[in-house]
Amino acid sequence: MNNTSIPTQQITIALDAMGGDHGPVVTVPAALHVLTRQTDISLILVGDQAAIESELNKHGGSINARLRIQHASQVVTMDELPSQALRGKKDSSMRVAINLVKEGTAQACVSAGNTGALMATARFVLKTLSGIDRPAICTALPTITGHCHVLDLGANVDSAAEHLFEFAVMGSVLVSAVDNKTHPTVGLLNIGAEEIKGNEQVKQAALLLQNSGLNYIGFVEGDGIYLGHADVIVCDGFVGNVMLKTTEGVAKMISHFMKQEFQRSWLRKLSALIAMPVLKAFRKRVDPRAYNGASLLGLKGIVIKSHGGADSYAFGKAILEARREVIKNVPEQISASLEQMLMKRKVV
Amino acid sequence: MNNTSIPTQQITIALDAMGGDHGPVVTVPAALHVLTRQTDISLILVGDQAAIESELNKHGGSINARLRIQHASQVVTMDELPSQALRGKKDSSMRVAINLVKEGTAQACVSAGNTGALMATARFVLKTLSGIDRPAICTALPTITGHCHVLDLGANVDSAAEHLFEFAVMGSVLVSAVDNKTHPTVGLLNIGAEEIKGNEQVKQAALLLQNSGLNYIGFVEGDGIYLGHADVIVCDGFVGNVMLKTTEGVAKMISHFMKQEFQRSWLRKLSALIAMPVLKAFRKRVDPRAYNGASLLGLKGIVIKSHGGADSYAFGKAILEARREVIKNVPEQISASLEQMLMKRKVV
Repeated sequence: MNNTSIPTQQITIALDAMGGDHGPVVTVPAALHVLTRQTDISLILVGDQAAIESELNKHGGSINARLRIQHASQVVTMDELPSQALRGKKDSSMRVAINLVKEGTAQACVSAGNTGALMATARFVLKTLSGIDRPAICTALPTITGHCHVLDLGANVDSAAEHLFEFAVMGSVLVSAVDNKTHPTVGLLNIGAEEIKGNEQVKQAALLLQNSGLNYIGFVEGDGIYLGHADVIVCDGFVGNVMLKTTEGVAKMISHFMKQEFQRSWLRKLSALIAMPVLKAFRKRVDPRAYNGASLLGLKGIVIKSHGGADSYAFGKAILEARREVIKNVPEQISASLEQMLMKRKVV
Repeated sequence: MNNTSIPTQQITIALDAMGGDHGPVVTVPAALHVLTRQTDISLILVGDQAAIESELNKHGGSINARLRIQHASQVVTMDELPSQALRGKKDSSMRVAINLVKEGTAQACVSAGNTGALMATARFVLKTLSGIDRPAICTALPTITGHCHVLDLGANVDSAAEHLFEFAVMGSVLVSAVDNKTHPTVGLLNIGAEEIKGNEQVKQAALLLQNSGLNYIGFVEGDGIYLGHADVIVCDGFVGNVMLKTTEGVAKMISHFMKQEFQRSWLRKLSALIAMPVLKAFRKRVDPRAYNGASLLGLKGIVIKSHGGADSYAFGKAILEARREVIKNVPEQISASLEQMLMKRKVV
């Protein structure tokens, strides 16, 4: 296993240029922007050649040593069933981007497309790591003290204790790698901090984690996510998805009320103008775009899911997340950690 | 069954005066305040007589035709196991308050005490309504368009489809009664709006609800709660509790960042001063205290759970929620609705 970075090597990332709500309008300028900022990256724009070229022209970009187009004739739509995408869209931009990772042409791929189809295709093409039963979706979220990583966010429902354990290992490895934390704290999302509360899966997972060698700190409640109670927070995908979407809803409601209150009168509009620098600074701190780029962990390859509605700034963040995971060999590190733990269990 | 209001009758509500993080310091002034505002209410303060009297004196209050004390020698602590409270605290302020409802001296009780102990004691003393397998905790939450009710918030984990169905009936009756909505919309909390997504329990519950006669509108995602997608949102208690606590966490984080940003410099502090009326109006709109008072639904009696950390304003809100449910005979209405639905199913 190789834990060290690959700083001198060029990193090639395949982008599903057609995915998401906006397609090339977002992905192409994001690619151009990242290329100017990160000289160690090469990008492959995968999708309809004409559409991509037209968008490149608009932004004065062109094919060069670090940017090429890989044509793909199909697009997976946002509401397509994963099984349909898998069977019927073998030349989709999403599938071709993942194929490039499989064959080693790219070290990672990024897609803003349909999450279910992306997970199903990535799992089918790349396969899961040995020792991983269920891949999971993991993202960083802001907290009062910095940020944390939460998984699973919707790849799995009805996760058993063993699955929660796998999520904990994967999340812990990811955070060690991308945040350079040696022993990230790991918490299990639960409905009370007491040992007696929660469902069976969570209680069983707690027992597994107590003897795992991970820096397991116990149960964390929903508010603990944003109060910074742990570096890695583990939960079933149904729960995690509700948590994530709830966060979006609360943030939208708060922002809506705030706007309404600042627009009620000319005096209030004036005070909004005066408070603008503060409001802008505040908005920047909770800007979900800065956290765009969820990792599909547990696969034999790096796949990053961008939010479907991402703009080019946000999509660029997802590309940078892919870069970080390539530099740190995240899939290999997950494999190695799992192997170590299984060895330890056998010895015990 | 009697669906009509009881406006002329005096409503007696028993208060667990010792419950919550603060006890009489909060509950006594809340009681005094409510009595001056609502002339149709009588209150019984249940708990340590001396502690309650001392607090009454502080606020210039005294025993009268509408306010009396019922001594209880024990207090259930906030971290006590429900089973311990049930067995060992038969003269707790919580238990005695619930007993007053059971024997008909009070029409409802309110407690800010330990949720698990309150549910266990209420269930043991009052029993569940016929046709209800699992009582649930329900609260109102603010939305962009007004408010919604969500249940279950933590009384149950691993709720089966039948339980989710019961929650839907109970929530629907509550909203019809207290919000005067004839056919409140009911949504099932899920991780996608598509039929194929979600876990088995939710998919099965959807089938039950489609033929229920309730105004079932389908799946709602986490963000839909705060975007006002349904009047009643139904979920398992584990999921609901994580959702509620996540909301608390996001709100705390946002408020923390906002304060920090407004305090970075004297210029920013000045702009905070100028924006103060707006910030205050905003804060009022998302003030969780206004939504304090969760209903323990499915019991043969009205029990309202106040947040443990509630101040006297918030505790007063919980008393008013109890009053509303007494006026509308919520438990009887739930019984009647369930009976109607079961009859309909048999006929079909």
